[in-house]
Amino acid sequence: MTGSGADLCLGIDLGGTKIALALVDAEGRVHAERRVETAAAAGAETVIAAMVEAGRALLAEAPAPVLGVGVGVAGQVDTVEGVVRSTPNLAGWHDVPLAARLTDALGLPAVLTNDVRAVTLAERAFGAGRGANRGSDHVAVVFVGTGVGGGVVSGGRLIDGAHGYGGELGHMTLVAGGRPCTCGARGCLEAYVGGWAIAERARQAVARSPEAGRAMVAEAGGAQAITAVAVQRAARAGDPLAAELMAETGRLLGHGLLSVVHAFNPRRLVLGGGVIEGMPTLVETAAEVVRDQAMPVFLEDLEIVPAALGREAGVVGAGCLVRSRLGDTREPTAKSSDE
Amino acid sequence: MTGSGADLCLGIDLGGTKIALALVDAEGRVHAERRVETAAAAGAETVIAAMVEAGRALLAEAPAPVLGVGVGVAGQVDTVEGVVRSTPNLAGWHDVPLAARLTDALGLPAVLTNDVRAVTLAERAFGAGRGANRGSDHVAVVFVGTGVGGGVVSGGRLIDGAHGYGGELGHMTLVAGGRPCTCGARGCLEAYVGGWAIAERARQAVARSPEAGRAMVAEAGGAQAITAVAVQRAARAGDPLAAELMAETGRLLGHGLLSVVHAFNPRRLVLGGGVIEGMPTLVETAAEVVRDQAMPVFLEDLEIVPAALGREAGVVGAGCLVRSRLGDTREPTAKSSDE
Repeated sequence: MTGSGADLCLGIDLGGTKIALALVDAEGRVHAERRVETAAAAGAETVIAAMVEAGRALLAEAPAPVLGVGVGVAGQVDTVEGVVRSTPNLAGWHDVPLAARLTDALGLPAVLTNDVRAVTLAERAFGAGRGANRGSDHVAVVFVGTGVGGGVVSGGRLIDGAHGYGGELGHMTLVAGGRPCTCGARGCLEAYVGGWAIAERARQAVARSPEAGRAMVAEAGGAQAITAVAVQRAARAGDPLAAELMAETGRLLGHGLLSVVHAFNPRRLVLGGGVIEGMPTLVETAAEVVRDQAMPVFLEDLEIVPAALGREAGVVGAGCLVRSRLGDTREPTAKSSDE
Repeated sequence: MTGSGADLCLGIDLGGTKIALALVDAEGRVHAERRVETAAAAGAETVIAAMVEAGRALLAEAPAPVLGVGVGVAGQVDTVEGVVRSTPNLAGWHDVPLAARLTDALGLPAVLTNDVRAVTLAERAFGAGRGANRGSDHVAVVFVGTGVGGGVVSGGRLIDGAHGYGGELGHMTLVAGGRPCTCGARGCLEAYVGGWAIAERARQAVARSPEAGRAMVAEAGGAQAITAVAVQRAARAGDPLAAELMAETGRLLGHGLLSVVHAFNPRRLVLGGGVIEGMPTLVETAAEVVRDQAMPVFLEDLEIVPAALGREAGVVGAGCLVRSRLGDTREPTAKSSDE
């Protein structure tokens, strides 16, 4: 790595509970890091001020020139205009021109994307998408946490559509007209396998079969307190109702992944997020449905794998975004996206 | 249009009942045309021979140089290798290296894609995707005929994944584990709204409610003879069961389109194919579901429109494919795909 290949990017991961910031190099290595709590209820100004303060502190200690700032936002982001349109977990964020605000405050070009799209770029370049060059050109990512996010790299480019809202794989239909989703639609994948939906399905199952659900209720400390974490814990402890709920979750995830496979013909399908981390067997349960039902040609060199990067994926991916959007073509990350 | 912009392409649309061939210019105009019946049961050699014969006849009368041959195939095509992997409606087509065969026989470079992907390129460049430049960079197409096909142009490029199998929007999940589909999966969009599925749903509805289905049965000449065309005809004639079946079909299509909108964030969503042509009100019924349920930011400049090109879309799109794959960057079609 020579010359400007040694440049750094400031990657920011803006989540509902914390803001992670890091100086990231072209190989995806983190050189310095800050984490601050997100004042989620305080409105955009307070959060931006905290982001700018932590960003300035990192920039002051940067050991090399910094090319720009990339931000992954848990919400809907107009990547063309650099505007945060809305955020389910942050109060008062509507049409916030975050890219312009950061450029003004930090004196660097700034680019935005959705947080899971940032993770997708990182997993593609440095994580589960790594390996065969052509394999990493066609990677789809589904992250199952409280919500379900997604991202797709196809032909080496991030596929996010006209404004960058695309890639919302958690809001593909799983059951037409089915369970209400937080997004306003019915029957989304998220409305079945997202953490909030697992908890809701479990509470309904317990209401139907109080006897079968005793262990889950005890685990959670009350029927109304059941969370996805409690369901997973009870399932691991051998509770049959919880185990069946999680097995069903895996199968439903598999049916959702069929849509991703048939729409995008990826080589690697990467599954991550808190629900997957809490129960890694979901990957295999979902993969079985895909192998059983997808059209055979789609399966020939498809790998369904867990995410390989840890909690740094968001900031690393935000760094990838800077390199790809600012047109640096010297480094592997430069192929991640060129929209 | 000057110089080599006057070059032509030989576009071929290989369907289950007919082969259409045409000389197409860079503006999507057809200069000469042939249509021959597909000997669907006779195997690949017979069909290729007919294709070559008609192709040679067209090339002999070409008024300008011909750049290459493009073929849209009703089936799964490895676009990278130029191999037809399988075709639901043509017997004996398995792993046929059609591109190489046509190059040998016609002395021109040949490229393949799926037939609806070819239509997508044509609609994007010369049909319903036309207009605002940026609008035509983000176009999704769903064709509802006997089966349901699809194609997506995103960022100006055809999105068809690692081998070119992607874009199978008819085989995205609509109901997890639902009705069996001809592709081997359960619950695909096609298994609800494809022509064969409409007929199947209608026969089942008539079996449940023989009285209500009398008009449909009379129209078809017997309960087991009910086809999608008969259902549409009875619906137009005011038969309430047929009308409800078609209204339900439109709503189900809308739920399927939600997946397309959230995954791809297109500006134009183009609906075509025999079932849509037979009942154009399906476009509005489906669009209502999308407008009611999609996340608001996705709707801001989304247009859901009927296909604008007629039966020539397949050959014109195959011509677009030649220009984009052979790297001609002078004409509008050159932006269609550059995989």
